Amino acid sequence: MPAVDARAAAGVADEALVVFTPSGRRGRFPTGTTLLDAARSLGVDIDSVCGGRALCGRCQVQPAVGEFAKHGVTSRAENLTPFSEMEQRYAAESSIADGRRLSCSTQILGDLVIDVPSESQVHRQVVRKRAEVHDIELDAALRVYYVEVQEPDMHDPAGDLRRLKEALEFEWRLEDLACDFQVLHGLQTALRDGDWQVTVAVHEDREIVALWPGFHDRVFGLAVDVGSTTIAAHLCDLSSGEVVASAGVMNPQIRFGEDLMSRVSYVMMNPGGEVELTAVVRDALQDLAAEVAAEAGIAVEDILDVCVVGNPIMHHLLLGMNPVELGGAPFALATDEATRVRAADIGLRLHPGARVYVLPCIAGHVGADAAGVILSEAPYLRDEMNLVVDVGTNAEIVLGNRERMLACSSPTGPAFEGAQISCGQRAAPGAVERVRIDPQTLEPRFKVIGCDLWSDEAGFRDETRSTGITGVCGSGIIEALAEMYLAGVIDTDGAVDGSLAARSARIVPDGRTFSYVLHDGDVRLCITQNDVRAIQLAKAALYAGVRLLMDRMRVDRVDRVRLAGAFGSHIDVKYAMVLGMVPDCELAHVTSAGNAAGTGARITLLDRKARGEIEDVVRRIEKIETAVEPRFQEHFVEAMAIPHKSAEFPNLASAVKLPEPKTAANTTTPGDRPRRRRRSR
Amino acid sequence: MPAVDARAAAGVADEALVVFTPSGRRGRFPTGTTLLDAARSLGVDIDSVCGGRALCGRCQVQPAVGEFAKHGVTSRAENLTPFSEMEQRYAAESSIADGRRLSCSTQILGDLVIDVPSESQVHRQVVRKRAEVHDIELDAALRVYYVEVQEPDMHDPAGDLRRLKEALEFEWRLEDLACDFQVLHGLQTALRDGDWQVTVAVHEDREIVALWPGFHDRVFGLAVDVGSTTIAAHLCDLSSGEVVASAGVMNPQIRFGEDLMSRVSYVMMNPGGEVELTAVVRDALQDLAAEVAAEAGIAVEDILDVCVVGNPIMHHLLLGMNPVELGGAPFALATDEATRVRAADIGLRLHPGARVYVLPCIAGHVGADAAGVILSEAPYLRDEMNLVVDVGTNAEIVLGNRERMLACSSPTGPAFEGAQISCGQRAAPGAVERVRIDPQTLEPRFKVIGCDLWSDEAGFRDETRSTGITGVCGSGIIEALAEMYLAGVIDTDGAVDGSLAARSARIVPDGRTFSYVLHDGDVRLCITQNDVRAIQLAKAALYAGVRLLMDRMRVDRVDRVRLAGAFGSHIDVKYAMVLGMVPDCELAHVTSAGNAAGTGARITLLDRKARGEIEDVVRRIEKIETAVEPRFQEHFVEAMAIPHKSAEFPNLASAVKLPEPKTAANTTTPGDRPRRRRRSR
Repeated sequence: MPAVDARAAAGVADEALVVFTPSGRRGRFPTGTTLLDAARSLGVDIDSVCGGRALCGRCQVQPAVGEFAKHGVTSRAENLTPFSEMEQRYAAESSIADGRRLSCSTQILGDLVIDVPSESQVHRQVVRKRAEVHDIELDAALRVYYVEVQEPDMHDPAGDLRRLKEALEFEWRLEDLACDFQVLHGLQTALRDGDWQVTVAVHEDREIVALWPGFHDRVFGLAVDVGSTTIAAHLCDLSSGEVVASAGVMNPQIRFGEDLMSRVSYVMMNPGGEVELTAVVRDALQDLAAEVAAEAGIAVEDILDVCVVGNPIMHHLLLGMNPVELGGAPFALATDEATRVRAADIGLRLHPGARVYVLPCIAGHVGADAAGVILSEAPYLRDEMNLVVDVGTNAEIVLGNRERMLACSSPTGPAFEGAQISCGQRAAPGAVERVRIDPQTLEPRFKVIGCDLWSDEAGFRDETRSTGITGVCGSGIIEALAEMYLAGVIDTDGAVDGSLAARSARIVPDGRTFSYVLHDGDVRLCITQNDVRAIQLAKAALYAGVRLLMDRMRVDRVDRVRLAGAFGSHIDVKYAMVLGMVPDCELAHVTSAGNAAGTGARITLLDRKARGEIEDVVRRIEKIETAVEPRFQEHFVEAMAIPHKSAEFPNLASAVKLPEPKTAANTTTPGDRPRRRRRSR
Repeated sequence: MPAVDARAAAGVADEALVVFTPSGRRGRFPTGTTLLDAARSLGVDIDSVCGGRALCGRCQVQPAVGEFAKHGVTSRAENLTPFSEMEQRYAAESSIADGRRLSCSTQILGDLVIDVPSESQVHRQVVRKRAEVHDIELDAALRVYYVEVQEPDMHDPAGDLRRLKEALEFEWRLEDLACDFQVLHGLQTALRDGDWQVTVAVHEDREIVALWPGFHDRVFGLAVDVGSTTIAAHLCDLSSGEVVASAGVMNPQIRFGEDLMSRVSYVMMNPGGEVELTAVVRDALQDLAAEVAAEAGIAVEDILDVCVVGNPIMHHLLLGMNPVELGGAPFALATDEATRVRAADIGLRLHPGARVYVLPCIAGHVGADAAGVILSEAPYLRDEMNLVVDVGTNAEIVLGNRERMLACSSPTGPAFEGAQISCGQRAAPGAVERVRIDPQTLEPRFKVIGCDLWSDEAGFRDETRSTGITGVCGSGIIEALAEMYLAGVIDTDGAVDGSLAARSARIVPDGRTFSYVLHDGDVRLCITQNDVRAIQLAKAALYAGVRLLMDRMRVDRVDRVRLAGAFGSHIDVKYAMVLGMVPDCELAHVTSAGNAAGTGARITLLDRKARGEIEDVVRRIEKIETAVEPRFQEHFVEAMAIPHKSAEFPNLASAVKLPEPKTAANTTTPGDRPRRRRRSR
């Protein structure tokens, strides 16, 4: 405890003034007080797992030397006890950076200024790669605590568990803990093997889920995004918050159906088939866990917590629930609540006490993946109006701010992923991903995945020899269509202009319509009239969903657009707007959110408060069912035009030279006006 | 809601006065109100599982007809709506007793007196066979609730689970329920199969553990006493509280060791052997569950709750915990707390949602069986000083009242169960269980299990021909020794008086000592000097334990003695006192408690409040470890004499003519005085 200043004023020599930075907290302490005790008595946030026994190394601090006029302190090296035997032992095993000390093993001898580095704080920030509205505060749902347990005594028949709980309450103020049944089985052995010193893993401050003899701080968690195509996992060190390994695998359910609905159909036509679908996705997750564990050099048994996002059908199948109700109206979820289960309950063989947290679903078409995106993007913490779009077979659309949040799902179909496109393919080496078309010559140039060169640059042919040029992926299709529109190859209605065949060999007849030849090599890549129609249908569905939410919100513009998911990460937002996939917005404010769903899973892994937060937010979101909204169809029809029949795109028009409509003034719809206005620029 | 009396005074014709008996609660109700609604608005306790839908039949009442001056009401048959179609349907399926009505389907038309029979009350008493300090109040930890769930709606994407919880909260005020993960798997099917009407099983008002389409009230619980020799189970109907079937089997662990310590030794010498011991006891429990289920004509899947008592080693082995720590000082339990697990977690295949509650242990030698005895006997609710003794290989001894409770275990060894006795055997047909010895002739007469006749009665030989006379069981040994003492065959030190061989052929030499020949047939049954010593050691240990608790409690007499367990059920308490097994007490207040441990398990099954009650009581009990109490040895030595070296037995002496000590006045111990006093009567 800090001594009262009166004693210091009275000139008591055995007290010293200590200032902790960056907090600036200060107090007088009797000499001999450890830095850790001093910090704690001032409420300075210093981590410790081992309870001050020089085992965990979390409480490292950096003494400053010199005169600090600002603090009124002269901090001298000799004002601390010398590097102790315990510190030497710790340093020999794990290393301590130069100048740093273990605060638990260092005593105050005189006035000091002590810096607490951010990595020594309990609630330290986990820095995310891009600037975000809120960084992750490390406060994992699974925490370890080192304790010394009272030995049993014939005079006090309290069981080992009770004495363990008493130690946890005494040392760590953990009260009323439950204990996982399987922990009981190894309890007596661990206590005796550890000579009554054990490390305990506590889940959500509520339940003891694991126990090791002695000191143990290798605890890891897995953040998982179960997509219909890909399952991705990030292994996180729950002590540091760092991602130590990542991996992804194809969802093996693909063999039962490429898209979600065909998997639901499989179950409908093969009663009991959900058991197979569940088994393969769980196996894949187990393999993925093994893969990331191996990559990080840990055992799968070191994984104690798993957080999962996924769309409603993946959510149901992973949890072993039949998804058929999600295959038809009213699309009833078995549960929309967050689900907490033991990993073993869903067939995962990790640590026997490992827990799984599955984020809540929002509605029958808006799943835990959307909840992950919302948690990661946190529109509910912002003042401006945010549009967050996660494009897949369905587009999940969220619109809102701290006042109000709306969400819906729109049936875009798989065209954006390259399916239903004649030359479409998944994003893989050899796929065209960038396209430019010269408006004069109509000649294209493009880039393929796996090669940094454009197709008209020297060396392109050599560098693409191994992969070939095999197809066009989702982002390539978007760019091809947008460039075709900007070059006048297609008009606002999406029709390929056959008259251009006279000017360019790129325009070729295809039955009663025309195609654009993007590439003619081993494989001939054409954008057909049908391809254009497929993208028009998809983008119209997306835009109509967005528009429905804007109507409900009574706004006609958004301040910020975030494109989440793999698709959102790869498309050039400008082209997305040229096609009218999203409403007009300042281009600088239209950005990719990366794998925001997976980030959401990682946040719930590292910050337990985020679990309650997203559960509350999801309850507050107003869900709109596009299928029963009469205006959806209306918006859909209007959105078929490129970029749109009536909506204005002033921000886009100021950034990109849009073509003049070929058929002008032949309409009296209100939509006519903005088009003319665009033309006038 | 009851209408205000002012309206009645104003002569409004459409209200009636209804009096419910036996509570006497009364109120005025608009005509057309159902009896159930009326009762509930007055707080009258009427049960209903189906929520007033004429499905469960729990809400039956008995309308009274006539003038009731006491209540100021004339109750007429026509003041109720006629027997309804719903009642007829229920009566056809399940029967309604003459004159009874379903209160949910019967409306008030005029003034009435309505009797609520006890079986229609929610918190009805389960009558126990003997008078007890408290009957069991039926309030099972596992209860079923029938609800109608809102159908899903495209405009409200709440999952099925959320709508189910809302229904449970709306109809039954059950809030913040958790849901067992396995229930989620069948949730959607059950709701649809039941046309949105389902019955839900809720465990401890906290968690949904089972679900059935439509109305379902077949829910059963199992009360289990896992003894080292026998495992006994009672199947209870959780709706009525009745025991519908009972069965017992030998504990198959016997093949690993007859007594507890030899089983612990087996584990010590065969590492991993605890897995085998656990497996066989769990298998036996599963078989027992199947047996009682078959006897009652139900499926094991109808069993949803299990309550278990057992000594610490059985407790640990059933739960899958290694018992070796219990084999030596300091006898540390893995846990002394009550344990709640899923039945599946201990390998029981009952209903998938079935739960197991294991009562708390008191100390390393005083187990959950003792907790069951304490709950059943409830000394902690009494004013007088109670001694409760459960005799087995160890005797569990509890002394106390509402002020203070003490407990210990005393190492009596297996002599009381017939082991270590030359002619000893388990209580089974053919075993001698009652013995009388003529003090003049020293000739015995006896009874054997399986025959109601005494051995000197006509027909005894014929009736025992099938079983034979094979040995002497525990109660037979007690009676034989006590009668030998009363007849002067053994003296207060337990020595067989060889000089009597001159008088009776029953006294025969046996090496350097003498034996008493109880029976000489196909098998010769002798009580040897060693047999006497074995019983003396056992009873001295028991008495010393009791005395230790009395010292600690600072009392020198007890008001009431209860003998629990199979042994306690069969011995004649008078003979137990003649041998000095228990301290002197008025004989009318020394009684058998039957299988009190099993009754304790049954109480926790039927009355959920009892769980918290026994957990609190066990925490408050002061545990005495006999092994470290220096006075134990002292008491033990004194208690070797029959009945005792120094203790007084005034109540016994007034009921039984005790023999005069053969060696009088050769002692100056304080114990001399009481013996003389007894003689003077």
